[in-house]
Amino acid sequence: MTPSFGFACTDASAPMKPWSFERRDLRDDDVRIEITHCGVCHSDIHQARNDWGWATYPLVPGHEIVGRVAEVGSKVSSFKVGDKVGVGCMVDSCQDCPSCAEGLEQYCEKGMTQTYADKDKRDGLPTYGGYSDQIVVTEKFVLRMPDKLDLAAAAPLLCAGITTYSPLKHVGLAKGHKLAVVGLGGLGHMAIKFGVAMGAEVTLFTRSKSKEAEARALGCTDVIYSTDEAAMQAAAGRFDFILDTVPVPHDLNPYVATLKRDGTHIIVGVIGPLDPPLSGANLIIGRKSVIGSLIGGIAETQEMLDFCAEHGITCDIEMIKMADINEAFDRTVKGDVHYRFVIDMASLAETKQAA
Amino acid sequence: MTPSFGFACTDASAPMKPWSFERRDLRDDDVRIEITHCGVCHSDIHQARNDWGWATYPLVPGHEIVGRVAEVGSKVSSFKVGDKVGVGCMVDSCQDCPSCAEGLEQYCEKGMTQTYADKDKRDGLPTYGGYSDQIVVTEKFVLRMPDKLDLAAAAPLLCAGITTYSPLKHVGLAKGHKLAVVGLGGLGHMAIKFGVAMGAEVTLFTRSKSKEAEARALGCTDVIYSTDEAAMQAAAGRFDFILDTVPVPHDLNPYVATLKRDGTHIIVGVIGPLDPPLSGANLIIGRKSVIGSLIGGIAETQEMLDFCAEHGITCDIEMIKMADINEAFDRTVKGDVHYRFVIDMASLAETKQAA
Ligand SMILES: [Zn+2]
Ligand SMILES: [Zn+2]
Ligand SMILES: [Zn+2]
Ligand SMILES: [Zn+2]
Repeated sequence: MTPSFGFACTDASAPMKPWSFERRDLRDDDVRIEITHCGVCHSDIHQARNDWGWATYPLVPGHEIVGRVAEVGSKVSSFKVGDKVGVGCMVDSCQDCPSCAEGLEQYCEKGMTQTYADKDKRDGLPTYGGYSDQIVVTEKFVLRMPDKLDLAAAAPLLCAGITTYSPLKHVGLAKGHKLAVVGLGGLGHMAIKFGVAMGAEVTLFTRSKSKEAEARALGCTDVIYSTDEAAMQAAAGRFDFILDTVPVPHDLNPYVATLKRDGTHIIVGVIGPLDPPLSGANLIIGRKSVIGSLIGGIAETQEMLDFCAEHGITCDIEMIKMADINEAFDRTVKGDVHYRFVIDMASLAETKQAA
Repeated sequence: MTPSFGFACTDASAPMKPWSFERRDLRDDDVRIEITHCGVCHSDIHQARNDWGWATYPLVPGHEIVGRVAEVGSKVSSFKVGDKVGVGCMVDSCQDCPSCAEGLEQYCEKGMTQTYADKDKRDGLPTYGGYSDQIVVTEKFVLRMPDKLDLAAAAPLLCAGITTYSPLKHVGLAKGHKLAVVGLGGLGHMAIKFGVAMGAEVTLFTRSKSKEAEARALGCTDVIYSTDEAAMQAAAGRFDFILDTVPVPHDLNPYVATLKRDGTHIIVGVIGPLDPPLSGANLIIGRKSVIGSLIGGIAETQEMLDFCAEHGITCDIEMIKMADINEAFDRTVKGDVHYRFVIDMASLAETKQAA
């Protein structure tokens, strides 16, 4: 085992604090990564606070991880020391089921191994995330970060990026389509960038009048205030696809009404009930559908990173120090961030001296 | 105008009674049909009782209409006197919007004209359905009934048939797929027949233990009691598609859980809220979707009728006399029919003498 250092919380109500722990010794197929940056995903907060009920403590969050390879196992062939690499929401899967065989490890039928608050499939030990100095991950779940991408601004691609890229590719978004994005946060701003890069005409649905200029700067041709009933009615039957990034229960019906016949409303954020309930008639009249999507597979994550390099896409971020994480959590909950906090892991050393 | 005779109700609480009314004079493109049989659809009861709030009275139900051409307008080219024909849920549409152009008149952007309880697009007069001796319909909405099909048993194909055929074709049901059908009624038994004919392995979900033998006789390889939690759990991840024919709000979540990754739950019956609400996680984990579907277009209805002739498919029916319609309504509401009542319109003459 190798000593590691990071930030953890010890229960659902505890703040994030410095914590010393251990990473496993390298297996043949493992890569040790020195973490340079880690994005702050809303899920990190949900997990730290045990909002979903399956957190385990001490909990080291972080699944938007970038850094450099520090050491490789004897059979690692894809990476060498010094390579710029990334790790997202998964660190392993069964590698044996139909979903894994199709490169859809996120839907592994035996359950993927999550980057933190999960158990390693081989040794049963807890997984700890990227709010730390290093991580050890099997090479199959390590991504190559294109040289063109700024590492810090690319970190959130590993979750916010792939979560929005994957469903847009899955539904076949292309030039000529009209896409609406619901919500302008970490996921929403990436969805807009991808939609524009894929050639679609992109509209933002938002409750906040203040978002119009930002949305247009990101490439939206239109902004609709979801609280403006007349504007919502005027948008009836307009969109081929809606990518709904809102992470809390909300009424999908007014959005579904803005879909064309055969349109699809994609959800990536709500894991609770779709309450108020969908209207059956809203789906039947117009043969509309609601579909869910969970992050993306490893091969598709690499494809997305390469797409980002080709199109010059990264996240808009605010860099923070590790010591500021509790404030960053509070600001993320309030939506007070443009659009993702990224921790500069060099700042971890300062907290070590303080600890 | 031509005198016509049928059965109507005068308000939401009135029984069906004999009623004399008029059909329009033939336009150039009209076909007058002498109705031989008409199926009794659950919608007829919903409309007669104004369950959906848009009924108009006097209301002559019936949109599973078969008969013989009695007269044609001067420009009718597809039909001649004596032809066996059918009429379904629609008698007109705008013929000008993208949906109409694609042969999806049921999704006409200006609204299709329903066979009854609607208004004719050209003269604004009320439409009256097939519980009557004759009907006048523009030739574009008249179907050719294949000679091989028994007219009476084919009548319900015009609604129950196309409502289940269309979504199965839309999702691409084929050999090797596993299909589950929810509910064994007029729609459900047709869904099973089509699923089997398209080469799928078909399972019935039902609450009623008494349905097992019937379902197997129709070609199901398995029957799952939806109230049997262990059986439902054992079916997790099993199906490519679910065709849900239940016409009242119900919990979709236990069915969605039995879908494979990328599986689709099709609703054709529920027009109210999907209550209790769908779980977002149930869709996100496995990239599952819920889609609605409304009857089918005219060209596809003809395709379905030809498919039925080729595969020897008709509905299982109980023939009734027109005078028995009120009892048939009550029995339909109770689900006490195998699987569709069809009115022998020859019996209408008896009621005329009595009236
Ligand atoms: Zn995340
Ligand atoms: Zn797997
Ligand atoms: Zn019907
Ligand atoms: Zn139209």
